Amino acid sequence: MGKSNLELICECDNFPYYTDNRVAYTQNLQNYHEFRVNGYDAILGYILNSVVQKFPWSSEYWVVDSATKTVTLATPADATPGHRSKLVGDSILEAVKLGAFEVLKGWRNEKYPVYGPGGEFLLDMERCASPLFGIVSYGAHMTGYVDDADGLKLWVPRRAKNKQTYPSMLDNTVAGGMCTDEKPFECIVREAMEEASLPEDIVRASIVPVGCVTYSHIRDARAGGETGLSQPEVEYVYDLKLDASVIPRPGDNEVEEFKLWTVQEVKDALARGEFKPNCAVVMIDFFIRRGILTAENEPDYLDILSRLHRRLEYPTASHC
Amino acid sequence: MGKSNLELICECDNFPYYTDNRVAYTQNLQNYHEFRVNGYDAILGYILNSVVQKFPWSSEYWVVDSATKTVTLATPADATPGHRSKLVGDSILEAVKLGAFEVLKGWRNEKYPVYGPGGEFLLDMERCASPLFGIVSYGAHMTGYVDDADGLKLWVPRRAKNKQTYPSMLDNTVAGGMCTDEKPFECIVREAMEEASLPEDIVRASIVPVGCVTYSHIRDARAGGETGLSQPEVEYVYDLKLDASVIPRPGDNEVEEFKLWTVQEVKDALARGEFKPNCAVVMIDFFIRRGILTAENEPDYLDILSRLHRRLEYPTASHC
Repeated sequence: MGKSNLELICECDNFPYYTDNRVAYTQNLQNYHEFRVNGYDAILGYILNSVVQKFPWSSEYWVVDSATKTVTLATPADATPGHRSKLVGDSILEAVKLGAFEVLKGWRNEKYPVYGPGGEFLLDMERCASPLFGIVSYGAHMTGYVDDADGLKLWVPRRAKNKQTYPSMLDNTVAGGMCTDEKPFECIVREAMEEASLPEDIVRASIVPVGCVTYSHIRDARAGGETGLSQPEVEYVYDLKLDASVIPRPGDNEVEEFKLWTVQEVKDALARGEFKPNCAVVMIDFFIRRGILTAENEPDYLDILSRLHRRLEYPTASHC
Repeated sequence: MGKSNLELICECDNFPYYTDNRVAYTQNLQNYHEFRVNGYDAILGYILNSVVQKFPWSSEYWVVDSATKTVTLATPADATPGHRSKLVGDSILEAVKLGAFEVLKGWRNEKYPVYGPGGEFLLDMERCASPLFGIVSYGAHMTGYVDDADGLKLWVPRRAKNKQTYPSMLDNTVAGGMCTDEKPFECIVREAMEEASLPEDIVRASIVPVGCVTYSHIRDARAGGETGLSQPEVEYVYDLKLDASVIPRPGDNEVEEFKLWTVQEVKDALARGEFKPNCAVVMIDFFIRRGILTAENEPDYLDILSRLHRRLEYPTASHC
């Protein structure tokens, strides 16, 4: 027996729910400090206690309160995003110098945004530091498929062996993280060209935005680096129906190969746990929207549907 | 300015969230007693305090505890669903005799199921009594659409003027409540024939199950009867692409007329608040899955997506 679809979702969405288990929820929160920015009434992320202890918080602009278990960036309420980002960036550079954090060894040179109430842009920070602060990260995932006389088949890439995170695991056809100032649609079009060598005109003409999946992940060893870090995520989801003549090809060094798989082949690989956890989540969402998984053949249908769309307890982005 | 899509969702999903506002969540719960069944560690619904006071709880088989704010059906842990249902049914008949509850005046002669942990069937009760107990109710909704050279159009019915609930409001093409022993797919096929006179062979051949929407509703005056009743709901969602030659027609006295509307006409009617609240929710889900509402044109995209798929704090059904 392989993994059930609910088990796959649970690997990704493994931060406890208050309404499911109040004790587990409260106990889990004991492991973290709240990340806050002065002037905004919102928890922006959860920072693991062991990170709080080791991180070089400059008392000039950080207030660490062990009684309320909060870490607050103490900039003036009218500080600019640029000002806040500079101070957070300086702190992260100090932490890199200390060499105390594994995740900071995977420097990406990409900036991830942090939003406050109402979707206000507050600051951004180096991508690899985001799980230290437990902020919501954003990405875009696309399932490319062929649906013709031969039936439905999906384009499935295998990640490169030397990828920093989840090496050699299966992935969605195209997927990537969204940096500051990037919007979901433009992000996925760019990634489709870069990662899968798909022609821009075909992607723009046929891609369909179909929703998003959201989950709250606590990182394990497969992600690389420190474990126990909180990583809530939003993945904007796209479908792209492709003509059988259009073949995705690795366009950078992130993908080893693409294969065109039947639904059954994908289901089998999911059950074997071969997909990167959040890519399994996107695949299950695809199967539900396509009527492949139904209330009558998936025992955990309702559980899965709510967990694919977790209500995050942090402010999130608005891209209008 | 009409209603925003998020406002429409909030009219339906208006039971507070713990992680959004702990105070509002806790205060709201003060209005209710938990409905429980002896032997099962689960809240099966929330019963409004004023209902608890007026309902004829027989002390032979009900335990009402004002300290823990629970109402427990005190049948043996190994009672059968038939036994439990009989006692609950007797109590409801007593309540009908008292004439103390408006909602019981709309007797439907349909049975709604109640599930325990793991989806175990515990009992069923008359449909019109379900909001008194605050149990999860289940339904199936289908959007029938035409998508041809003239563009995408949707079949929108208007409810009959004399409907007990939400008279004259707009509805989904086909929608109905699921009774005990009914499965979602067979429910929607039956309703499509009964309500919209759609040929069974066309429905079975082309209908696609595409997920479900879940929300937690506190009833207001538009639902008829007592206000403040808790009504969490699961609606299994289906799409049906129809040839322009297939015309839905009222098959019973529940629908006044069907009209084929453009997306813009539907959006305008939504903004005017003309749709029955949970039908607005299903329509918004359709627009998201079809790429009509996107992250770039809907400011509340993420909020909407999570609230369309609320994680209910009660055990729910499994139809496998």
